[in-house]
Amino acid sequence: MTPIAHIETPFDDKFGIPRQSGMTSVECRIVFDEGFRYPEAVRGLEEFDYIWLLWRFDTDEVWHPTVRPPRLGGNQRVGVFATRSPFRPNTIGLSSVRLLRVAFEDCGPVLYVEGADLRNNTAIYDIKPYIPYADSHPDARSGFAPHPADRRLNVVFPDTVNLPTDIQRGLMEILSLDPRPRYQDDASRIYSLCYAGREVKFTVNGDSLTVLSVQ
Amino acid sequence: MTPIAHIETPFDDKFGIPRQSGMTSVECRIVFDEGFRYPEAVRGLEEFDYIWLLWRFDTDEVWHPTVRPPRLGGNQRVGVFATRSPFRPNTIGLSSVRLLRVAFEDCGPVLYVEGADLRNNTAIYDIKPYIPYADSHPDARSGFAPHPADRRLNVVFPDTVNLPTDIQRGLMEILSLDPRPRYQDDASRIYSLCYAGREVKFTVNGDSLTVLSVQ
Repeated sequence: MTPIAHIETPFDDKFGIPRQSGMTSVECRIVFDEGFRYPEAVRGLEEFDYIWLLWRFDTDEVWHPTVRPPRLGGNQRVGVFATRSPFRPNTIGLSSVRLLRVAFEDCGPVLYVEGADLRNNTAIYDIKPYIPYADSHPDARSGFAPHPADRRLNVVFPDTVNLPTDIQRGLMEILSLDPRPRYQDDASRIYSLCYAGREVKFTVNGDSLTVLSVQ
Repeated sequence: MTPIAHIETPFDDKFGIPRQSGMTSVECRIVFDEGFRYPEAVRGLEEFDYIWLLWRFDTDEVWHPTVRPPRLGGNQRVGVFATRSPFRPNTIGLSSVRLLRVAFEDCGPVLYVEGADLRNNTAIYDIKPYIPYADSHPDARSGFAPHPADRRLNVVFPDTVNLPTDIQRGLMEILSLDPRPRYQDDASRIYSLCYAGREVKFTVNGDSLTVLSVQ
């Protein structure tokens, strides 16, 4: 298993990465590694709206037959193969992302995608086209992982924060998804999250998230 | 990368395997390998209708930046990352299959699935639940791989062939999908396919496939 590419995302840290793909419109960039920079290797890919990424979970933790999904409040155990948890025998992640465009730059072909749930600089093992007639099952039952309620936090930025528009927009999306662990609800707690090279501090009170500082 | 399980399918040979998942109702069986036979590792999986299989393509061929998909008649080259071809840098296959039931047998947990496009005894690297809100994009454009026309061959069995009902039904499905390479159309040619331990010989003339023998 050799990485073929790496993805550039604003998610510098594990905390704050969306819990599944497709939750944000943050634009990310997939750059092929040396030895895989063939423009012809992506020929025809631009005809697909979505692509699959098979990627490497960066974890050294050993796997256990059961895990406690954050979605279940972190105190109920289910089988590791019934989850998308990173702590599994072969640490491969699977995500579908929207393909925005294919570009050809000095570093070879570059894929611009949206909706990634990958940490910055994650190694990609494979890229495959999304084929709806084989891959799409819109009505499939999905047990304890039903579509999340579209509950978004109201994000309040202080006037003193001045960020480039696209970074502010992406950060607001990430924060509105409520990055806190499901089982925490402490209005006095100050959280810290890394996004696009900045450290962001915030608190959450009810449905309102207040950014304290961005540095 | 360690196999965690193997799948038992009636597809003994590469020739005759459906070209994508979900094309047949043939029932297959996923048996965990030693070291992974924990009933609790599949706890909760029965709440999902579909599962993802990440599996090993059995091929020693080197990869090339472009491949010639059978779907395009075998004479047009597209980028390897724009196809689901087995001849890729990391030989991992991806298939969604319908989970029929989870059983607990002497060999540990066993998953009964439908719609697999895997050769008999293929090594499975990972099993993940199918989560429609992240994985399903029914309206995604899919370039040169649109939904195949539901053209099925009419399969004629000789009276002398006497097979168990489920094997005959599965074999008829596989044959009706027209296993021939897309660019072959020679009514005099005798094809041979291995299915569930039998060798099946047949010819194809127009929309009619005639089984000559099953041994």
